[in-house]
Amino acid sequence: MIAEILCIGTELLMGQVLNTNAQFLSRRLSALGVSQYHQTVVGDNAQRLEDAYRLALSRADVVITSGGLGPTVDDITKRVAAKVAGKELVLFPEAEEAIRARFRRYGRPMTENNLSQAMFTPDTTLLPNPNGTAPGAIVPMGEGKVVIHLPGPPNELQPMWIDQAEPWLQQRSGKVMVSRYIRIFGMGESQVDELLSDLEMGGNPTLSPYCSPGEVMLRATACADDAAAAEALLLPLIGEVQKRLGDVIYAIEEDDTGSLARCAVEALKRRGWTIATAESLTGGLMASSMVEIPGASAVVNGGFVTYQTVSKTMLVDVPAELIEKYDVVSAEVAYAMAEGARKRLGTDIAISATGLAGPDGGTPEKPVGTVFVGISTPERTRVLPLRLVGDRLRIRTLTMKHAMNAVRIEAERM
Amino acid sequence: MIAEILCIGTELLMGQVLNTNAQFLSRRLSALGVSQYHQTVVGDNAQRLEDAYRLALSRADVVITSGGLGPTVDDITKRVAAKVAGKELVLFPEAEEAIRARFRRYGRPMTENNLSQAMFTPDTTLLPNPNGTAPGAIVPMGEGKVVIHLPGPPNELQPMWIDQAEPWLQQRSGKVMVSRYIRIFGMGESQVDELLSDLEMGGNPTLSPYCSPGEVMLRATACADDAAAAEALLLPLIGEVQKRLGDVIYAIEEDDTGSLARCAVEALKRRGWTIATAESLTGGLMASSMVEIPGASAVVNGGFVTYQTVSKTMLVDVPAELIEKYDVVSAEVAYAMAEGARKRLGTDIAISATGLAGPDGGTPEKPVGTVFVGISTPERTRVLPLRLVGDRLRIRTLTMKHAMNAVRIEAERM
Repeated sequence: MIAEILCIGTELLMGQVLNTNAQFLSRRLSALGVSQYHQTVVGDNAQRLEDAYRLALSRADVVITSGGLGPTVDDITKRVAAKVAGKELVLFPEAEEAIRARFRRYGRPMTENNLSQAMFTPDTTLLPNPNGTAPGAIVPMGEGKVVIHLPGPPNELQPMWIDQAEPWLQQRSGKVMVSRYIRIFGMGESQVDELLSDLEMGGNPTLSPYCSPGEVMLRATACADDAAAAEALLLPLIGEVQKRLGDVIYAIEEDDTGSLARCAVEALKRRGWTIATAESLTGGLMASSMVEIPGASAVVNGGFVTYQTVSKTMLVDVPAELIEKYDVVSAEVAYAMAEGARKRLGTDIAISATGLAGPDGGTPEKPVGTVFVGISTPERTRVLPLRLVGDRLRIRTLTMKHAMNAVRIEAERM
Repeated sequence: MIAEILCIGTELLMGQVLNTNAQFLSRRLSALGVSQYHQTVVGDNAQRLEDAYRLALSRADVVITSGGLGPTVDDITKRVAAKVAGKELVLFPEAEEAIRARFRRYGRPMTENNLSQAMFTPDTTLLPNPNGTAPGAIVPMGEGKVVIHLPGPPNELQPMWIDQAEPWLQQRSGKVMVSRYIRIFGMGESQVDELLSDLEMGGNPTLSPYCSPGEVMLRATACADDAAAAEALLLPLIGEVQKRLGDVIYAIEEDDTGSLARCAVEALKRRGWTIATAESLTGGLMASSMVEIPGASAVVNGGFVTYQTVSKTMLVDVPAELIEKYDVVSAEVAYAMAEGARKRLGTDIAISATGLAGPDGGTPEKPVGTVFVGISTPERTRVLPLRLVGDRLRIRTLTMKHAMNAVRIEAERM
């Protein structure tokens, strides 16, 4: 099966909106084993959209559109597809009732142009939209080909795709796809690639790498007649990846929403530990990353932003002489910050970070990117010396990730 | 002039990479007054790329490619363009020397396949790449049309576009474009649209809206024979926007990299004030947003993450009875947190936030999204009560933005 993504909207051509829908759909299609060779963006122009439909349908079995399902005259996605199919749009009463109910629920008056959102060609399969007014649609285009219309807002498109369009596609293919996400920290993309290059050959199961600052995620996907058979195909592949990569794998999960901060918070919960922070260059980013995880209140007690030198002494009891002797960016100060934060808040563990995020302030001995992360428990206090590369945001983000990884390891240590 | 963006790389079709290059180029082209009607993504396949070039050149005067300039056999961007132009690639000695020099500087051996990065059709205009090995290129394709090749990594593509490709395009058009970015906080997109709809009609000057959580940015652009004439066209438009929107405009700038946090830090610097923070639901995000701004050390003294109730008492002296009486999510507690943080660190101003970020913990009286932001100076302490809507990340982000805006206003108050 070949699919093609067609994103519709002048706001994309103007750069007013980042096209995250194309990436979301590409990832999902790729995990389903569906091939894609082209993606296109067109504006709200009927002739150009008609040409784009005809071209995409000449190349693909399934054309997936995003955007242009609203009630305004600019929303031409369905009308132009109907023209290409040689059919008329008719009112679907169940869709009309859903739209009317939504307006009643929010106490807003419904204008007549909203009824255009309930109009489809007669052979359409509706995709109800629990998060907005415009339903999606699966529209037969002849010769076994279909167009799948999805709404533009990602919070409407994503659940509609996952809950409705994907099951429809899977049922049509008669196969089940199962994926696992292997998350890696502490090894670069090129080294991961080198160690696994013979496993990334396509086929079934497949292995695909995705990168973000400091991290690599591998998606392992298998296709079979049922979920159990697909999982049986995945197991040996995942085992081989674990054997080759070892400790740099920090999680193997069933979805791709994980993060180092989530793993750190979950490891702390399992251990029953509370945590405190003392942050200089990260300035609150470490604490904020943990607080971002729902339920963080069970483990995050509190913390200190000790950005100015004097605040390191005032808030977490780093002796002024220590700073004078070793410099504020030093393993000794990171050590004292972590111990001080832990004692002040009476937590089981504390983390600290001091370093040079740049762009100014580097010296030949201590260049920008020199960072020390401290981890303190009643049993022991350790310091990770880091040499990070990148701009200010990247250095601060990587510092946070190293700290989260250290927390996870410490909480899992027996 | 009509342009078309052609992004090349199988990693885009797999969803491994988010296509930020298309948005960056779209924004810049739109600010230059260059029209775009299509964007395309194709994989690393010679026949499909050739078809994509021919289609794009049939519709546009300038085709801008990103990606596929590397040294591997998958990097086919230049080779296929040369085939479409009916020309051969030849070695450019100055490009070869630049690549060799780069390898020498990093002490790495250069393999022969890197020389492919120095090969272009004879009539090419090179675009040197100070941030990577692959130069860009402007390649005549006949009939006055050109292909502009840019490297895929955004940190190489963006400066090459701004510093080299844009001046070339401007010189070719004989016109100068000037833009101003008007930043708005505290008014929704639809209301801004309604107040300005008659000004957003296109033409010269033009006004385009861009949205991010809680914010609207307007880009005003004018085109003229020289910069002074373009600025003269912009002034009355900007004046009219200021008249209609008033206080919700927080900055008018020459580039689009500003933020509420940057404006807050700059307002503090101008006033000569230092700041402290006390954060509950934001968990360090307010402090971190200010620390992200280079030079924040002049104003950010330090802060407290007071996530657990007990830490509000221990760290910033909120009386336990006050919390008992009014609840931890209350104006009274936000007030006391801000005063406590300011006194503990001895700063000129302090901000605090307490609230419910969800997903759990809401009640009918205090639903998720109930937030109180405190702002304390020696002169006065105030509390902003907020009712925010969205998921956990959005509620925390909007809280931070409201706090930054309050800091800016307080620091600018005479």
